[in-house]
Amino acid sequence: MKNFQYYTPTKVVFGKDTEEQTGALVKEQGGSKVLLHYGSGSVKRSGLKDRVCASLEKAGIAYVELGGVVPNPRLSLVRQGIELCRKEGVDFILAVGGGSAIDSAKAIAYGVKYDGDVWDFYLKKSFPEAAAPVGVVLTLAATGSEMSNSSVITNEEGWLKRGCNSDLGRPRFAVMNPELTYTLPEYQTMSGCVDIMMHTLERWFSHEKDTELTDYLAESVLKTVMHAAKVLLKDPENYDARAEVMWAGSLSHNGLTGCGRDGDWACHQLEHELSGMFDVAHGAGLSAVWGSWARYVCQSDVDRFAKLAVDVLNVPYDYANPERTALEGIEAMEAFFRSIHMPVSLTELGVQVSDEQIEELAYKCSFQETRTIGGVRALGRKDMEEIYRMAR
Amino acid sequence: MKNFQYYTPTKVVFGKDTEEQTGALVKEQGGSKVLLHYGSGSVKRSGLKDRVCASLEKAGIAYVELGGVVPNPRLSLVRQGIELCRKEGVDFILAVGGGSAIDSAKAIAYGVKYDGDVWDFYLKKSFPEAAAPVGVVLTLAATGSEMSNSSVITNEEGWLKRGCNSDLGRPRFAVMNPELTYTLPEYQTMSGCVDIMMHTLERWFSHEKDTELTDYLAESVLKTVMHAAKVLLKDPENYDARAEVMWAGSLSHNGLTGCGRDGDWACHQLEHELSGMFDVAHGAGLSAVWGSWARYVCQSDVDRFAKLAVDVLNVPYDYANPERTALEGIEAMEAFFRSIHMPVSLTELGVQVSDEQIEELAYKCSFQETRTIGGVRALGRKDMEEIYRMAR
Repeated sequence: MKNFQYYTPTKVVFGKDTEEQTGALVKEQGGSKVLLHYGSGSVKRSGLKDRVCASLEKAGIAYVELGGVVPNPRLSLVRQGIELCRKEGVDFILAVGGGSAIDSAKAIAYGVKYDGDVWDFYLKKSFPEAAAPVGVVLTLAATGSEMSNSSVITNEEGWLKRGCNSDLGRPRFAVMNPELTYTLPEYQTMSGCVDIMMHTLERWFSHEKDTELTDYLAESVLKTVMHAAKVLLKDPENYDARAEVMWAGSLSHNGLTGCGRDGDWACHQLEHELSGMFDVAHGAGLSAVWGSWARYVCQSDVDRFAKLAVDVLNVPYDYANPERTALEGIEAMEAFFRSIHMPVSLTELGVQVSDEQIEELAYKCSFQETRTIGGVRALGRKDMEEIYRMAR
Repeated sequence: MKNFQYYTPTKVVFGKDTEEQTGALVKEQGGSKVLLHYGSGSVKRSGLKDRVCASLEKAGIAYVELGGVVPNPRLSLVRQGIELCRKEGVDFILAVGGGSAIDSAKAIAYGVKYDGDVWDFYLKKSFPEAAAPVGVVLTLAATGSEMSNSSVITNEEGWLKRGCNSDLGRPRFAVMNPELTYTLPEYQTMSGCVDIMMHTLERWFSHEKDTELTDYLAESVLKTVMHAAKVLLKDPENYDARAEVMWAGSLSHNGLTGCGRDGDWACHQLEHELSGMFDVAHGAGLSAVWGSWARYVCQSDVDRFAKLAVDVLNVPYDYANPERTALEGIEAMEAFFRSIHMPVSLTELGVQVSDEQIEELAYKCSFQETRTIGGVRALGRKDMEEIYRMAR
C-alpha cells in the first residue's frame, strides 16, 4: 500500500427535503452573500430554485444569480461569474445542479481569489492558493464533484477541456436529495451511472495490488451502481435506487476508492478530448471508449482484468486460461453498458470520427506529444490513435 | 434508506514516516502551543515521542506534556489536562497513542472551552458548544477515535464508563503510520481487530434494509479485518496487513459504515459496563459477549443473521431453514474469534462474575432501569442480565 492522504471535509446532508437546510448550512459556513449558480431552466421549472431561495431568505442570506451553465461548462461563463462576484461582494458560491454547475462554481471560487487569469490553473501554469467557499445542492448523480477536489472546464477558444484539482475547491457542504433526480431523462441517469463506475474503475486499475480494503470498497460501489441502474431503467422513481446511485457518486470520486494506490485515468483523458470536440455526454463518451481501451491494454495486467471479471461481473475464473476470463469480463462489462442503453462504440455514441479527427484527438490528448497517459500501460499518441480507431 | 448526515473533516495522512509531518499539520490548523497527551512509556521507549517533538520544534510549535493515560481513560486525568491547558495557554491538543489517549484528548478539548464540569457532557446534562482543536498521531488500530465524533471516559467515582458524541471533537488531522503498530502485543492487536469489527457490525445490524452500498462497505471492512488479523497472527510486521487494519479502524467508526440506517449498539453498551467494572480490554470484552447477545436476539432478525453468515462468513445458505444458517453464522464468528485468540465467554475473558455483579452490571447498563438498549431487539434490564449470564 502506498502512502496516501485522505481529506473529505464536505458535510453531506443526505435525504428527503434536505434542500430546506441550504440557508442554514451557508450561514454555518459564515456566508452572507451568495452567488446562486445553475444551469438550464430545469431548476426553475421544478420549483427547486424557489425552495433554495426561500431557505436562503429564511436564514437572512442575500444572493445574486448566474444561470446558463451548460454540460462541459464554459470558461466564458466562469469569467462572467468571477466578475459578478467581485462586483456584488459575494462571499459564498452555491451551485444548484450537477457536475457542470459545481465545476463551474469551483472555477469561479478559485478565480475570485486570484489576480491572474483563472485558466492558468487549468493549464497548470499556476495553482490555487485560496478559494471562496463553495456549497452544493445536487440534482444529478454523476461526476462526484460535490465531494471531490476536481473541476473540469472547457475553453471555447480551441475547445480545450482541462481539469484543475485542489483541496481548496472541495465543497463545504453538499445537500443531496435523491428525489431531485427522479425527473432526469433515462440517458442522463445512465450516463451518470457510467461516470460513477468509471471514477471507481479508473482508480481500481492500478499496479499497486496490496490494497485489499480499497479494492473491496471500489467493488462495492461498482456492484451497487450496476444493480441500481437496472432498477432505475424500469422504475426511475425508486427512491432507494436513486439514493444508492447518488451516494455512490460521491464516494466514487472523493478519494475513498483510490486510497493507497495510483490509478489509471486513460479513459477519462481519452473522453475529455471527445467531449471537448463533440460535446457528448461524459458518461456516454466513457462507455464508448472503455472496451477498446480495455482490450488494448488487457495483456499488460491480465490478473486485474480477470479479478474485475470474477469479483464484479460474476464471470467464472478459468484457472487454465486467465486471459480468457479477462476478455470475458470486458465483454460482460460491455453487455452491461448495452443493457442500460449506453453506447460501446463511437458510432453508437452518435459520433462519426474521420481519420484526421482521430489524429487531432490523439494530438490534443497527448498534449502535443508531451505526455503519456494510463497506468496499466503507458499510452502515447500512437496508442491513443489506435484506441480511438478501435472504438469507432 | 433513512436521511443521514456524513461529516468527516479529519485530514488523514497515512503511511510510512508520516509522523514527521505532525508539526506542519498542527501549524496548518493554526496551533501554536500544544498539549502532548499520551499514555504509558511506550511512546517514549519507541522513540516516537522524540520524533513528534522534533517535528513540532521544526515547525516552531511550543508544547507541554501530559502522559499517564490508561486504557478506559480516567476523568481525573482529563480534569488535570484541562487545568494544565488553561494554565499554559494551550491552543491545540495532540494525542499520541490509541483510542484512550484520543478520547481523553477530546474530553480535555471540550472541557477547556466549558465553564462547568466536563463530566456533564458524559452524563448528557449538557452538550459541547465549542472544543479546542485535536490532532492525532495514532499508535493502535482499534477504536477509530482518530476520525470519530466519540469519546468514552471512565469516572473513577463509581467506575461509570460513559460516552459523549460531538462533531466538534472530530480530530483535525490523523497521522497514521502502520509501522507504529508493529510492536503491539498480539492480544492488543487482536482486541483492536475485534473492536473494529464490532464498530462495523453494530452499525450493520439494523432494521433499515435498503442500504445496499452501506452494507457492502461494512462487509468490506469486516472481510478485510478478518483476513488481515489472520495474517498478523503469523506475521505481526506485515506492513500491508497492519495498514489494512489501521485504515479499516478509521472507516469502521467515522460514520461511513452506518450511512442511511440506525444501528444496534447493545454489545458496546453491555461491554462498557464490563470494562467499567473489571477494566478488561474493550475488544476482548466485546468478543466475550457478542455470541450470547447474538443468540439471544437472533430470532428477531433471522434474515440479517443469515446474511452475515453467507455474505461475510461463507456459510452456505440453507433455503429450507434460514435460522440454521443464522446460527451457523454465529458459530462461525465465534470460531473466528477463537482462531485469533480472543475470548468468547466471560470466563475466557478471565472474569468471574457473581450473580450479584450481573445484577449490578445490568442495573448500571439500563441506567437504573430508565433505558432499553439495542435495535434488533430492545433489551431491558432482565434481558441484559440473561445475556451476561449466557456469556459467563
